[in-house]
Amino acid sequence: MNTFGKNFRLTTFGESHGEAIGGVLDGFPSGVYIDLNLIQNELNRRRPGQNKLTTSRNEFDKIEILSGLLDNVTTGCPIGFIVRNNNQHSKDYSNVKDVFRPSHADYTYYKKYSIRDYRGGGRSSARETISRVVAGAFAKIYLEKLGISIKAYTSQVGNIKLNKPYTELDLDIIDSNDIKCPDIKMAKEMESLILDVKKDGDTIGGIITCVIKNCPIGLGDPVFGKLHCELGNAMLSINAVKGFDYGLGFDNIHLRGSQLNDEFDFINDKIKTKTNNSGGIQGGISNGEDIYFRVAFKPVPSILLEQDTIDINNTKTKIKINGRHDPCVLPRAIPIVESMVAIVILDKYLENKKYE
Amino acid sequence: MNTFGKNFRLTTFGESHGEAIGGVLDGFPSGVYIDLNLIQNELNRRRPGQNKLTTSRNEFDKIEILSGLLDNVTTGCPIGFIVRNNNQHSKDYSNVKDVFRPSHADYTYYKKYSIRDYRGGGRSSARETISRVVAGAFAKIYLEKLGISIKAYTSQVGNIKLNKPYTELDLDIIDSNDIKCPDIKMAKEMESLILDVKKDGDTIGGIITCVIKNCPIGLGDPVFGKLHCELGNAMLSINAVKGFDYGLGFDNIHLRGSQLNDEFDFINDKIKTKTNNSGGIQGGISNGEDIYFRVAFKPVPSILLEQDTIDINNTKTKIKINGRHDPCVLPRAIPIVESMVAIVILDKYLENKKYE
Amino acid sequence: MNTFGKNFRLTTFGESHGEAIGGVLDGFPSGVYIDLNLIQNELNRRRPGQNKLTTSRNEFDKIEILSGLLDNVTTGCPIGFIVRNNNQHSKDYSNVKDVFRPSHADYTYYKKYSIRDYRGGGRSSARETISRVVAGAFAKIYLEKLGISIKAYTSQVGNIKLNKPYTELDLDIIDSNDIKCPDIKMAKEMESLILDVKKDGDTIGGIITCVIKNCPIGLGDPVFGKLHCELGNAMLSINAVKGFDYGLGFDNIHLRGSQLNDEFDFINDKIKTKTNNSGGIQGGISNGEDIYFRVAFKPVPSILLEQDTIDINNTKTKIKINGRHDPCVLPRAIPIVESMVAIVILDKYLENKKYE
Amino acid sequence: MNTFGKNFRLTTFGESHGEAIGGVLDGFPSGVYIDLNLIQNELNRRRPGQNKLTTSRNEFDKIEILSGLLDNVTTGCPIGFIVRNNNQHSKDYSNVKDVFRPSHADYTYYKKYSIRDYRGGGRSSARETISRVVAGAFAKIYLEKLGISIKAYTSQVGNIKLNKPYTELDLDIIDSNDIKCPDIKMAKEMESLILDVKKDGDTIGGIITCVIKNCPIGLGDPVFGKLHCELGNAMLSINAVKGFDYGLGFDNIHLRGSQLNDEFDFINDKIKTKTNNSGGIQGGISNGEDIYFRVAFKPVPSILLEQDTIDINNTKTKIKINGRHDPCVLPRAIPIVESMVAIVILDKYLENKKYE
Repeated sequence: MNTFGKNFRLTTFGESHGEAIGGVLDGFPSGVYIDLNLIQNELNRRRPGQNKLTTSRNEFDKIEILSGLLDNVTTGCPIGFIVRNNNQHSKDYSNVKDVFRPSHADYTYYKKYSIRDYRGGGRSSARETISRVVAGAFAKIYLEKLGISIKAYTSQVGNIKLNKPYTELDLDIIDSNDIKCPDIKMAKEMESLILDVKKDGDTIGGIITCVIKNCPIGLGDPVFGKLHCELGNAMLSINAVKGFDYGLGFDNIHLRGSQLNDEFDFINDKIKTKTNNSGGIQGGISNGEDIYFRVAFKPVPSILLEQDTIDINNTKTKIKINGRHDPCVLPRAIPIVESMVAIVILDKYLENKKYE
Repeated sequence: MNTFGKNFRLTTFGESHGEAIGGVLDGFPSGVYIDLNLIQNELNRRRPGQNKLTTSRNEFDKIEILSGLLDNVTTGCPIGFIVRNNNQHSKDYSNVKDVFRPSHADYTYYKKYSIRDYRGGGRSSARETISRVVAGAFAKIYLEKLGISIKAYTSQVGNIKLNKPYTELDLDIIDSNDIKCPDIKMAKEMESLILDVKKDGDTIGGIITCVIKNCPIGLGDPVFGKLHCELGNAMLSINAVKGFDYGLGFDNIHLRGSQLNDEFDFINDKIKTKTNNSGGIQGGISNGEDIYFRVAFKPVPSILLEQDTIDINNTKTKIKINGRHDPCVLPRAIPIVESMVAIVILDKYLENKKYE
Repeated sequence: MNTFGKNFRLTTFGESHGEAIGGVLDGFPSGVYIDLNLIQNELNRRRPGQNKLTTSRNEFDKIEILSGLLDNVTTGCPIGFIVRNNNQHSKDYSNVKDVFRPSHADYTYYKKYSIRDYRGGGRSSARETISRVVAGAFAKIYLEKLGISIKAYTSQVGNIKLNKPYTELDLDIIDSNDIKCPDIKMAKEMESLILDVKKDGDTIGGIITCVIKNCPIGLGDPVFGKLHCELGNAMLSINAVKGFDYGLGFDNIHLRGSQLNDEFDFINDKIKTKTNNSGGIQGGISNGEDIYFRVAFKPVPSILLEQDTIDINNTKTKIKINGRHDPCVLPRAIPIVESMVAIVILDKYLENKKYE
Repeated sequence: MNTFGKNFRLTTFGESHGEAIGGVLDGFPSGVYIDLNLIQNELNRRRPGQNKLTTSRNEFDKIEILSGLLDNVTTGCPIGFIVRNNNQHSKDYSNVKDVFRPSHADYTYYKKYSIRDYRGGGRSSARETISRVVAGAFAKIYLEKLGISIKAYTSQVGNIKLNKPYTELDLDIIDSNDIKCPDIKMAKEMESLILDVKKDGDTIGGIITCVIKNCPIGLGDPVFGKLHCELGNAMLSINAVKGFDYGLGFDNIHLRGSQLNDEFDFINDKIKTKTNNSGGIQGGISNGEDIYFRVAFKPVPSILLEQDTIDINNTKTKIKINGRHDPCVLPRAIPIVESMVAIVILDKYLENKKYE
């Protein structure tokens, strides 16, 4: 299943070490001017080799649009695109050809398909998310015209947790540091932890928080197309994601209804809720308040330490993964999270226009 | 969007106080004998009025199958069914006709559709889940023949948390207590808390943990049909759910890759992982280990305390919700969680059969 | 596959002799007043026993709406409905329980599902189209507000062919005769032929022509959602249909491009084509001209003459079908054709609104 | 809507004069060896410039597979592919930039999207079918292993009609002549007509007949996924198609049920029907007999004669289309018809495997 979305649809293809990663965007509105630099910029935010926290693989991922634009304006026709795989070192992976890396998708792909592209993780590589970032960049261009903003940031790395709510943070400084945390002091601690972990040949996970501002009221569809269902589905589809919650989710289970209910009020002649514990969604439909949610990422399993495993001949063996890997995926996951959110919101926005 | 699933599809309809709740099952295999008592039993597990922890509304929800069976054997044709709404007191809701209940779906439905069925929450009522339980009961009948079991239990209510992993619990005693917790001592504490909360006219949330045993290897599809995406989407579609994580999710963010990776081993001549921190899913595909996940439920917003709100004329007002409501939805949500899981697993099982 | 449509979706269930025929409408706009008499009227146009040309089975098919309306106004929630099966004589069919009726779906259903509901054709009975007529009636109510009209009529029965184009016919007199032909003289000939055929215990097919007037420009989507693809798919899904063409289809294969091309012109300050050989659709998209197409129906296979066949034990045998059957399905198929067209047009209309 | 199929899905992109035509295949089984020459051969059958009956544009359409294969074996991952547009003369089309060619998609695309890619018809060009032929070639490789064969041939050009049923023709000689007609004498007459038409700067249409042999019993799904619905939908999606019928369709409307019913018999210990007027499908499901159907193609509208039209400024004008065009699309449409059939049959075959 390589298609996402209903009204605005992304279909992706490509393996880490194949010819190209690419995709098709279907259902994007016609007549929209696309600044290709904005697309490329989003890809640059995602690419490896940006700084000391990320893998030293220096992939310059250059977008090629193959269809759907006329003089940079969308025509309503599907937008095909590719990003060539140029800097792949296939030999790096020859030692994992027949061996299943623990907690990777190697074993399950092999059991499911009886064949697997072992080069760089093949289809299960996060390199696939290039296509999502392209789609998300298109969606963002459209949503920005509507005034909708999507900002993701790192709120936790390992045991280092940013305990302030997003409302007390300056989301404009997210890109000022490598870990993409809107609190400079915490960012330094997170970065220091990651460098320690990297020195150990180990990896670490964390949490990304995302905030959608100025989302129109009414997005999301009962019963099986609830806005938070689509957002959760989108987030969980990202490599290494283990959990999703929105509003006051897992962390506020101890509170009562009377503490969490968001009472209505008029503020500046507009209907607002006094609090926003619901996270901007009621009954699966956006209520005009900020939407916010958290995404839990596990430590990526590509550690440089020796591990027990088996091979395709069912023989016990050891594996030591070489190659260049991210000690922590969070900084590079930021644009991926934002992109998937943008796809969902545009999809739901188009859905609603049917009934206007 | 009232259809769920791709190969095994459930389409639902019905409002809390309309004529009936119902649905259509499409894609269920032919030739399966259906013991209608099993369907009714699952509905009975979900229905209100079972015990002191749940609402005193005593709805006996009787299933009527309208098509798709011949002498109780499935024919491959769609299975239409209804459950009549008999015990609805529409007058209970007349005071909320024009007023938006805080943290309910009243306001968002009204803004989205410019009309809402105010009687008992209309379509946003959890009564809609009757259809899901019927679908889940069919799916369970099929999955049980394959040896797949699905067990959900209450693992947290408010601040009372069952800290043992499911592997240390006896899942056969879940139904022995009203709160459906497989630890008798914790169950009593949880029940006691709920009764306190009820006395206050307040509500409380919690966490349901679910375990799928004996799931075949290979279920789930990269990239956008990952097994945990479908499970997450399914869980988030349930009323009052605010979060989902699987394996060692939000709670183990502090650990490193070397601590979380599940190394492979042979145990009794079978490939197993030494640990199961991944929760039975790698790269979106089941790996043959137990699948387990958590679902966070907020306190339902129907508290009996007076709250500030507004009405459809944009006037500030107060609301005090009467009627009979659950102080805690968890016990009744158990069969709903299991049902949605069963639907997902059957759907993915059928998907895989295409390629066998 | 029992769901039709993308934006406006109909899901159907029910067998000829089961408890009920029914369905769910999803995606119908909210806030639309539904005159239930209009729904019932459409069902009455479809029902058997209306006149001497149709089966003497007198089924009064009474609609029951179970959800989705509040005081007869649509709420945006799914509309569940059923029509009870009251007048079924199951014993009529006992002699066909184990025998495959030639050119019916008996054999293929049995081979596909290893079980079949033999009573009255089960799911393959045209009684299933009740659900489509209900959906079509809802769609018509919406389309009429937009000024779009859909009129189908019988243009051929056996070898009796109405050779005038629809532009030379008075489509307002279609319902003035039993065969639903807008040419009184031809209608009489057709009816006479059908009565002859009926006397012989035989059946006869024919052609229905359908005209859509006032369809907005721009409906239909390249490449795989062309308007005529959806119409063709819809028509071919109707029982006994063997062919579909639109504009000057099969019958004008001998003409050249220069004879068929529709040149543009201004007529009354509006862009029009001088001719409409294209049938109102160019490149899969409506161009504002009338849309017209033909649907070929085979003679239904329920003849009263003895035929050679086999049974489920692979034994040669003879069959003589009793029961009450239509000698010609065309008059009853008229509202079914119109209904499926209305569903398609509403679906495409909603699709387009996304991009307005 | 640029995706076709449910289990085996093709998503296409690309315009006639853009960078490339391409697509993504999703759901193709893993472990299948793909001889890339077979893919290229099918493209060569479709490409222009093959012989005197087709346009003199000599496009060598070279397939590039970008993903989904490992050493030419499918991996279960999506197969991305492109065919570069090399031989496009964009200047040929500058005179049609602002003018709507009669009976082309120019006007409807412009009205729908408010922008259109005027170069060579843009997305509405039959060049888009390159992607379908690639998909069809993959599907054929799979179906041939199952023994299923698909053969299409030209059965009518203008008023020259091959009156023999396919059972009396040698389908192995289809490729022996330029018009792809399995009757040498008729082929010559057809070719002669096309050359006459070409000399006049005009175009001519015709009919393609297609035969599927050895299709398994049970393909096709009631009610809305009938096999002939999917085939009809597929055929109608091909450029210039105006009609579809199967079995004894439009041409046998004069016959009675007793003449058309296919009685069952045992032939060589197998259940067969004595006749096959039904065209191999009963109730929407294949019955094991040959499936055959007809597809009506209009004369393509690109005539070299002057025509009346209007431009985007709503001004009356004349147009004379230059460029190199096919006087008759049938010979090049043969592999397109076969490809779409192969896609449908593979899709339905996979659907059925779910329930085996």
